[in-house]
Formats: sequence, structure tokens, C-alpha cells
Amino acid sequence: MDFASFLTSLATSFIIFVVLMLLFTWLSRKPGNKEVYYPNRLLRGMDPWEGGSGRTRNPFAWIREAVSSSEQDVIAVSGVDTAVYFVFLSTVLGILVLSGIVLLPVLLPVAATDTSVKIGNDTSKGTFNELEKLSMGHVQRKSLRLWAFLVAMYWLSFVAYYLLWKAYNHVSDLRAAALMSAEVRPEQFTILVRDIPSPPEGQTRKELVDSYFKAIYADAYYKSMVVTNNREVNKIWKDLEGYKKKLAHAEAVYAESKKTGKAEGTKPTNRTGFLGLLGEKVDSIEYYSQKINESVSKLEAEQKVTLREKQQASALVFFTSRVTAASAAQSLHAQMVDTWTVTDAPEPRQILWSNLPKNFYERRTRQIVVYVIVALTIFFYMIPIGFISAFTTLANLKKLLPFLKPIVNIGSIKTVLEAFLPQIALLVFLALLPKFLLLLSKEEGIPSESHAQRAASGKYFYFAVLNVFIGVTVGGTLFESLKDIEKDPNSIVTVLATSLPGNATFFLTFVALRFFVGYGLELSRLVPLIIYHLKKKYLCKTEDELKAAWTPGDIGFATRVPSDLLVITIVLCYCIIAPIIIPFGALYFALGWLVLRNQALKVYVPSYESYGRMWPHIHTRLVAALVLFQVTMFGYFGIKEFIYTVFRSYIPPSLNAEKVDEDQFEDAASQVSRSQSFV
Amino acid sequence: MDFASFLTSLATSFIIFVVLMLLFTWLSRKPGNKEVYYPNRLLRGMDPWEGGSGRTRNPFAWIREAVSSSEQDVIAVSGVDTAVYFVFLSTVLGILVLSGIVLLPVLLPVAATDTSVKIGNDTSKGTFNELEKLSMGHVQRKSLRLWAFLVAMYWLSFVAYYLLWKAYNHVSDLRAAALMSAEVRPEQFTILVRDIPSPPEGQTRKELVDSYFKAIYADAYYKSMVVTNNREVNKIWKDLEGYKKKLAHAEAVYAESKKTGKAEGTKPTNRTGFLGLLGEKVDSIEYYSQKINESVSKLEAEQKVTLREKQQASALVFFTSRVTAASAAQSLHAQMVDTWTVTDAPEPRQILWSNLPKNFYERRTRQIVVYVIVALTIFFYMIPIGFISAFTTLANLKKLLPFLKPIVNIGSIKTVLEAFLPQIALLVFLALLPKFLLLLSKEEGIPSESHAQRAASGKYFYFAVLNVFIGVTVGGTLFESLKDIEKDPNSIVTVLATSLPGNATFFLTFVALRFFVGYGLELSRLVPLIIYHLKKKYLCKTEDELKAAWTPGDIGFATRVPSDLLVITIVLCYCIIAPIIIPFGALYFALGWLVLRNQALKVYVPSYESYGRMWPHIHTRLVAALVLFQVTMFGYFGIKEFIYTVFRSYIPPSLNAEKVDEDQFEDAASQVSRSQSFV
Repeated sequence: MDFASFLTSLATSFIIFVVLMLLFTWLSRKPGNKEVYYPNRLLRGMDPWEGGSGRTRNPFAWIREAVSSSEQDVIAVSGVDTAVYFVFLSTVLGILVLSGIVLLPVLLPVAATDTSVKIGNDTSKGTFNELEKLSMGHVQRKSLRLWAFLVAMYWLSFVAYYLLWKAYNHVSDLRAAALMSAEVRPEQFTILVRDIPSPPEGQTRKELVDSYFKAIYADAYYKSMVVTNNREVNKIWKDLEGYKKKLAHAEAVYAESKKTGKAEGTKPTNRTGFLGLLGEKVDSIEYYSQKINESVSKLEAEQKVTLREKQQASALVFFTSRVTAASAAQSLHAQMVDTWTVTDAPEPRQILWSNLPKNFYERRTRQIVVYVIVALTIFFYMIPIGFISAFTTLANLKKLLPFLKPIVNIGSIKTVLEAFLPQIALLVFLALLPKFLLLLSKEEGIPSESHAQRAASGKYFYFAVLNVFIGVTVGGTLFESLKDIEKDPNSIVTVLATSLPGNATFFLTFVALRFFVGYGLELSRLVPLIIYHLKKKYLCKTEDELKAAWTPGDIGFATRVPSDLLVITIVLCYCIIAPIIIPFGALYFALGWLVLRNQALKVYVPSYESYGRMWPHIHTRLVAALVLFQVTMFGYFGIKEFIYTVFRSYIPPSLNAEKVDEDQFEDAASQVSRSQSFV
Repeated sequence: MDFASFLTSLATSFIIFVVLMLLFTWLSRKPGNKEVYYPNRLLRGMDPWEGGSGRTRNPFAWIREAVSSSEQDVIAVSGVDTAVYFVFLSTVLGILVLSGIVLLPVLLPVAATDTSVKIGNDTSKGTFNELEKLSMGHVQRKSLRLWAFLVAMYWLSFVAYYLLWKAYNHVSDLRAAALMSAEVRPEQFTILVRDIPSPPEGQTRKELVDSYFKAIYADAYYKSMVVTNNREVNKIWKDLEGYKKKLAHAEAVYAESKKTGKAEGTKPTNRTGFLGLLGEKVDSIEYYSQKINESVSKLEAEQKVTLREKQQASALVFFTSRVTAASAAQSLHAQMVDTWTVTDAPEPRQILWSNLPKNFYERRTRQIVVYVIVALTIFFYMIPIGFISAFTTLANLKKLLPFLKPIVNIGSIKTVLEAFLPQIALLVFLALLPKFLLLLSKEEGIPSESHAQRAASGKYFYFAVLNVFIGVTVGGTLFESLKDIEKDPNSIVTVLATSLPGNATFFLTFVALRFFVGYGLELSRLVPLIIYHLKKKYLCKTEDELKAAWTPGDIGFATRVPSDLLVITIVLCYCIIAPIIIPFGALYFALGWLVLRNQALKVYVPSYESYGRMWPHIHTRLVAALVLFQVTMFGYFGIKEFIYTVFRSYIPPSLNAEKVDEDQFEDAASQVSRSQSFV
């Protein structure tokens, strides 16, 4: 990639961004789009355009609103989890700004003015002179100018550790404030008990749980609720809800037909057989009303049976005091680890009910199996994709889906399809991966949605860092690189360090693309807008259906957090080698903060609240990114033959004390074998 | 070592054992030695020779008594910790017996009858034909007879895991029974609070603790005791105790002089200056009586000052309910990890008071420093010993200690000294090592004696396994071996496996020496016997002094457990390669069980009770030994080119699927770099 195409790529991204911004400004002012751009406010019963109608207000008012909103506003609207996410964004932004204002004015001149004859050209691969001049690759080996880079590395590390420490304290305060608020929250009075042993003859599980906890917490025990096997009752309930919706839909269709057609209207009909395509034709309204009546009585009967006879090995235990509940959730309740396991109860809305009765050994086994599957996915994900693209050649496609034949035979389409089939397979895989990882995480037997999201986020982070960052850097997929490294494990640092500079431009473009196009799409909400209008026009008949079409869902931490972590990992690892990446990274997090502040305040609706449990997860991975940065820099200073960093290979022989020791050891060896019996 | 010298060594050990047994039988029957052989019984006010006088009873009665004693007897006499130690001994014995009765009749004939031409002679180094015939080294490479050894490995692993599982359950029951006993134990109503923050102005630490815990545990809170800085008061108290002892001694001397000399006796005198050598000569009885009076009033004043003004950041908090105390000890009490740290309180007698006020960061720092020191000691302990032995040459010794000159100049002594000086340095080091490790563990800031003992035991186990087992096996000290392995990390398994067979004889002798001589000395208690009689004759004047001379101390788990673990590690790693080691190992643990049962019932007095907390520590290390065994066996099967074990290098090329994958990966590599932006 030469300098021109780098600039072109940047400019293209920027133009897309500007277009998306203009679209947002225009579309978000139309009252018909308020369900897409202000769903959060609508759900809270607020006026979408506070302080002015859509048409007259300043097109950049959203920026003012986002910037002026306080942390307490975010907590009030979107909860502690979202506030913690903004702490993450602003901490990383702080790290990049604080290091940027020192690193850029110092390192860029130091690198650019090194006019000595170059010995090696480390950054030649895939990069270009203009950018290279500003990078550490331009500094001569063994040059004393490297001191500046070394000091810069320490400065950045210091800044990062300090801001992370501040952020941890701050998040801890946020969590404590939320947990200590006077508002009564059911989960604070509840613990989740799993692995309840089988009750003795003549006692139900509920009686066992009651007697067990009443004995220990005589004063503060309130009551218990044993988890039941709800498969049957769920099915009936779902049928009932479905019939209710269909009835409402049929009534809406009937009402509409009265308006548009004859005065008495056309009664909607449906068939009772498979998928409504076969069977007897009946009047929908009557049919569903009757079905609802049947289901209600069936549901009541099944509810009784379920509560009495389908009790499982898990329960929620309620206390009358927060302190007792908190204390009980942290205490060991049985001699063996596989009975009476207790944890603090998740929020009611985020409990994964089907995971609760899974027993200790099942959870362990599932966890191991899931980890193995994830590891295989991370290391070998190219294999199934390779197979799929091998089998989905055009010839095969034509055989399997003959109706595609006329399209596929057109020359230009054929060429494009043949070239892009493997990429399309990869794209589909990457689009499905987060959902797949979330599914896997839930299969582990985790009891709450937020925990499962964190688990999925962790898995996605491994995938992203290992495959995108290390994979692209070292060149090829991870497995191949690992095979090289396995032959000589000491080389891992050197391999990584050698490969880094060559990919600086790729990652610059990568980060720029993500913030311009990614955040442009996020803000303009083009895809939800189109889907909403299509649904509104052709599918939705009732208010409920319409609401379901625009209800926005939550921010989606499970994919957002690992993506951001990937960007900061990349930026950290490059910020000394090619400091020019720092403004790109800062722009990514600044724009992210701004856009998501708007989305958090006006669009997304949190689906759970874990009071900032995401933070330790983020914190650990940020520290891991810092360590990765320091290790690669170690390697890179080694390549630059900068003897003041601690690489043994570069210690002058005269200073090398090893020889003396070795003789000592040979003496020692003979002594130790003679004197073993004294140990 | 040839077969004859192996037998000689065995026979010598056995003869020493027989002599020690005879000595024990003879000496333990003398009434004058009852303080050495039955101190535990004496302290409990029992008759040393229950059921018959010393002279008439059966000389082997102690064996019958040891074997017939139940676990409950051991718990009653010596506590749960000792009982758990016997569970360890009997579990390991069970593993060795159960595997021995299968392995010995199967593997020995399989190995001995392999008459095919030998390709390699793996066990030639330092061993001999007679033993080699019975080992796996005698089996041809690629032989199908190796199946027997593979199956034997699985059998042993299965037996070990099963018995360990049973033992864990059993120990858990023992602990639960002890903790649930009706007997009121102060530590069950107490928690230890550390890292108490500074109290606000006008409040003492005690008031802060009281108000803090009263607010949380309103019902069950009893009171608190803040730890104080006792340095001053301790000094006065120690002086006082010293004066009391000296007064008693002086009075005893005076009384004796009345009997032996003149009727009015000679009043003992002493000097008041340095070490009682200089200064005014005074009447001891008067002098010490006066000193005691002074100290008592000083002590009372200092006690008041200490309790009021020297409160530190740690406290013991007492509750009126066991459940609340147990629950409080497990609950988080503050937002930050560095304040209000709580743990369950140790027994009063095993609290290490000076460690309690150490704060969170100090404990962390100390722990890291101690770990570094221990690691350096384990890897480089030969260096200081090398230096010491280099400087303590005879010439230097003569210079420093001229009075040794006449002795050192004698020819034969000179030769012996010159040859053994390094060994003596090593011996002194090895004798001091356990004390050094215990001291280091206490410096970590651990709050209780039993915990410090476990920590020291863990460190000693690392030292023993790494230096004695791996060090001797691979040849040379650990550091040197590691340097080779660092060059090619994959070789570690092979290196270990190649070196193992050559040292089989060394370890056979090692184990035999330990059980014959070690347990012989343990049972006969020759050293304590001699020390006791010397003290009794020349030093002790009062009853208290005499009692202090024979009080036996505890079993000393900190050194005993890691030594036993070292033996089982060695036996496990050799039991497939040279199954003949199994009876030696079984004999070690059987004899150990028998001898220590006697000592636990009649000699040692436990100095603390941790209710079996040692078990998880032992269990983890036993599992680690099993894993080490399996890894080395993997390596050894690899050397034997036994293709049915999972070594990739030995998979026939026709079955090797790697080539196909590699092409897939090259495709994949190019795809992934083209599609990064989708991630």
C-alpha cells in the first residue's frame, strides 16, 4: 500500500462518515422515525425532542446533549453497566491522550530527524516512506535515540496503570452506591441455591430447603422457591401467548377490512393444519378465542402439577435482611463442594432458568467441553470454512439449487461469485460467531444472562486478539504461527516483534475504518430504520407488534467490549513503534464515547443490570493488553540491539558472569549426588 | 554399584535397624527413661506402662498397641491433624499394596523372560544385570510386552485416584465431626480482622471495631479485642519470667547445698553485670526477689499503657453464635480489598501475634520477597555452600582458629577433613534448611503457626522434589539441567525419562536407608535420650527445668510431610520402570505408620490443632506427583518407541493427517488477511 492509496482509503472512510452523519441529521428530525432514533425516550414516556421540535432545532444539538450529560444521567437512563462502559471508554481515551501529548511531540521529531545511514529497513513490508519516517523503524540500530522510545514506553505504562487504578476505584464507588441505595431490589434479599441433595422419603425438595435454611438463619429466613421443570408449562404458555397475538392480529385485520371494504367487513380465516397451509378453513377470531379458553384451563392444571411434582435440585431462598442474604451468599453451606452450592441471586429478569438445576459435575463437564470447542474454533476455524467454500463451488450450487442457474450463468456475476464465495463463507461465520459464543457460554450452565455475556465477551476477545492481531501480524492463521513457535519457544517474542512494524499501515486503516464507518452506521441506524419501516408497512397490524418492531434491545456488551479491547490492544502495541497511531486510537474512543452516549441516552434499553460486574473483566484484559505491549516492545528493543534493555543475548561477554557460575554448578552437582541421603 | 555392594548396603541398613530396635526394647523398659519414651502419657497423668510393669511386659507389646489403636484413640490423644497424617500414610500404603499385588506378579516375569536380542541398554548406567532383568529396561523396543507396562500404569493411576478420593471424603468427615463437636472452642466464636482503617479523630480503634461490627451483626456480636504493640510489655514480662526461673534455680541450689554441705547451706551469689560475669556480687535469692517485685509493678503500668495507647490495625472479634462467626469469617466486609480483611480466627495458642497488624500491601510484598528468596535458595543453594567450603579450607581454619592446629595437623584427620569439609557445609545447610524455611514462611505475615508450617512444608517439598529427585535424576543441580531444557523445551520429558532408569538403584538404596535407619532412630529416640540425661545430670535443678528438658514437642509436620511426599514421588515415578521399588516403598510407609503410631500415642504432644487443614496441601502434592509420574512414563514409552501411546513423532506417516491440514491453512491464511475488516 503506497501513501496515495492509504490517503484514499482514509478519505473514502471519511466521506462515508460525513454522508452517514448528514443522513442521521436529516432522518432523525422526521417525526415518523422517532421510534428508531428515540425509542428509549418513548418507552420512558418522554418527548423525543426535548426543548424544540424536530425541524427547528440545531442539527448538532445531540453532540451538546451527549457531552453535557452527567454520569448520573446515564445511570438513571441506562443503568450502572452502561456508566461503567463509559468509564472504560474515557479511561482508555485518557490513556491515549495523556500519552499522545507527550509521545507525539517527542518521538516523531526524534524518529524523523535520524538521518544516519540505515542498516536495516524493518518497516519496509507493505508500508511506505512518508509514514516510515515517523516510526521507530527509521531510527538506526543501537542508536542512543532509542532512549526516548524506552522512556516513552515507561511513561505510557505508568499513565495506563495510574488511570486504571483511578478507574477501578471509581467503578467500585459506583457499584457500592448502587448496591447501597435505599431502593428495595428483590435480588438483594435472595440467594441462589444449587445442587440441593435428594430429599429423604416423605419430604419434598421445598420442605428440605425450608428446614435447612430455617435452622441456620432462624431470624432472617423468609421463604424459598424451588425451581421446577417448566418444559410442559412453558409450551402451553407459549401457545397461549401465540394465540393471543394471533387473535389481536385477526381482530386488527377485521377492523381494517371494515374500513376499506364492505361495512360489515371480511372475517379473516385460517387453516388449522401444518403451518396454516393445510387442513380445515375456520374463522380466525372464533378459532383463536376458543383455543385461548382451552389453553387457559390447561395452563392452570399444568401449573399446579409443575409446582407440586416437578421440583428440581435448585432453589431461590429469600431473607428478610440484606446483610444476611449477602453473608449467606458468600458462606460455605455444606461439607462437600458438590452439594448446597450458594451464590448471590441474579436479577429476576436475567436468570437463565434452564441452567439452574444443572448439577456441579454437569456444570464442570460442560465447561470443559465448551472450552475445548472454543479453543478448536479459535485455532482451526478456517478448516470448516475451507471445506464449505470447497463444496459450495458454482457447479455444486447449480446442482443443489437449480433455480439459481439462469442468474449464475451470467458472465460477470459468475466471476464475482467465484472470487467471493470463500469470503462470503468467512463473513457468515464471523457474523454468526458472537451468537455462537453466547450460545456456548449459556451451555456452560451459567445462571445469569449478564454472566453469560461476560463469558462470551471473554471468548470473543481471545478470538479477536489471537486471530486478528497476532494472526495478521505474524502472518497466516494462528495455528501455523504456533507451529513455528513450538519449534523454538524463545522465538515467540522476536517473531512478534519482527512482524509488527510491517503491518502498521494495515492496522491504521483498520482502526480508521472502524471509527468512521462503524460509528457512522451506529449513529445513523440505517439498518434498523429500514427494517422498521418495512415491518410497519407490510407486517405489523397491532400496537404490540409495532412496539416489538422498534424496541431497540440493549447495547450488546458481549461484542462491543471485545471489539474495543482489540482496538486498544492494537493501538498500545503500535504506539511506540509508530506513534502516529495514537491520534487514530484516540479518535476511535472519543467518537465511540460521543456516539454511544447519544445511543445510550436515546436509543438502547438495557435488558439487565449487573451493577458494573463487567469492570473486573475489562480491567483484567486491559492489563493483559499492557503486558502484551510490554513484551512485544521488549522484543523490538532486542531487534534494535538496544543493549540497555535487559536481553541476555546482548550483554557484552565481558559483563557476562555465567561462566563463573557454571563451574560452581559442576562442583555442586557432584556434591549433591554424594549427599542426597541427608535431605 | 554392583549387586554385591547393593546387598551390602541393604544389609548394613538392616543391621543398624535391628540394633536400634533392640536398644529401644531395652531402654524403653527402664523406669528412668520413661520421660523420653512416654512423655505424652506422663503429661496426661497416665501410667507409662499400662497393663504391666516395664520389665515384665512383652518386648513387642508396642506393636500390638499401635496396630490395635483406633483412629478415635489417635484423635483423643494427638488431635485431628495427627489422624489426618495417618490417613495420608495408610492411603499411600494402600496405593502401593494394591498396585504391588498386581504389578509385581505381572511385570517382573514379563520383563525377566524377554530373551530377544537387546537393541538399547537404557539402564546400564550405575546399575547391574540382576536388577536390570526385572525392569522395563530389559524389554525390547517396540515390543508388544510394553502393553503390560502401559496397562499397569493405568491400573496404578486408577487405584491412586480412587483411594485419594476415598481419603478426601474420610478426612472431610473427620474435620466436620471435630468442628461440629459440642465442645466449646473459643476460635469457633471468633474472627480475625486485619487492615482496620485509621479511626476518625476522637475515636479509638476499639470503638471503631465495636461500632462497625455491632452495626452489621446486631444480634450475635459479643465484643472485640484489638491487637496491641506488645514489644515493651513483652520485654518486661520476659524479664519477670526469667527472674522467676532464676529465683527458683537459686533456691534449689541453696536447698541442695544444705543437704550436701553445711547445715545452714551456702547462699548462691551472682554478679549483676554483663552475662553475670562482671559487676557487683550479690545474694541471688534476695537480688531476684527484689527484681521480681520491681518487674511486677512495671509490668502492670506497662500493661495499662499498652492496652490504651498501643492499639494496632488488627483485632479479634467475638460473637455469641458459631454460625454468625463462621459466616462473618467468609464474607466480604469492605469495598476495597485492602481494608477490613476478615478470616476465621486461629486457635489462641497458635496465633503469631506479631504478624497480625501487618497490612495488606506489606503482606503481599513480603510474600513476593519470600518467594523470590525461596526460588533462589532452591535453584542456587550450591553457590553459598561452594563459597563457604572454598573459604573454610584447612589453611584458613588454622588461621582463624589456631587452637585447632595440633588436631588438624594429624595426618589421617587432615585427609578426612579435607575430603569432607564441603559435605559438612552441605550437611549443616540441609539441617538448617527446614528452620530457615519456617522462619521465611512466618515472615510472609501468615497469622497462624499451622499455616506457617504448611507454607514451610510446601517450600521444602519443592526443594526436595526439584533438587533430590529431578536434580539427581537428570544429573547435576537443577539450574544446570534447566539450562539444557531451556534450549529445547520439548526435550524435558525425554531428558527426564532417559535419566530415570540409570538412577533406580540409587533411589532403592535411598528409600531403604530412610526406613531402616530413619525410623530406627525415630523409634529409639537416641538423641533426645542422651540430651535429656545430660541435662538432668548437669543443668536442671527445679521440676520446671526438668520438665522443659523432656517435653517432647510435636510431630513436626513441616519436615515429615514433604519427606514422605518425596519418597512417594520417587516410588511412583519408578514403579513401572522398576517395579521392584514397590515393596521398598510399601515397607517405608508401613514402618512409618507403625513407628509414628507409637510415637503419636506415647511421645509427641501436639502444639496446635488445625482440624486437618494439612490434607488439601498433601492431596494437591500427591496429585502433582501422579502427574509427574504420568508425564515421565509418557516420555519413557516414547523412548521405547511404543507407538500406541500418543506421541506424534511415532505416528506412521501413512496415518499422519497433517499434510492435508497444512494446505488448508495456507488458503486460510490468505483469506483471513483479506477479510480482517469484518471482524
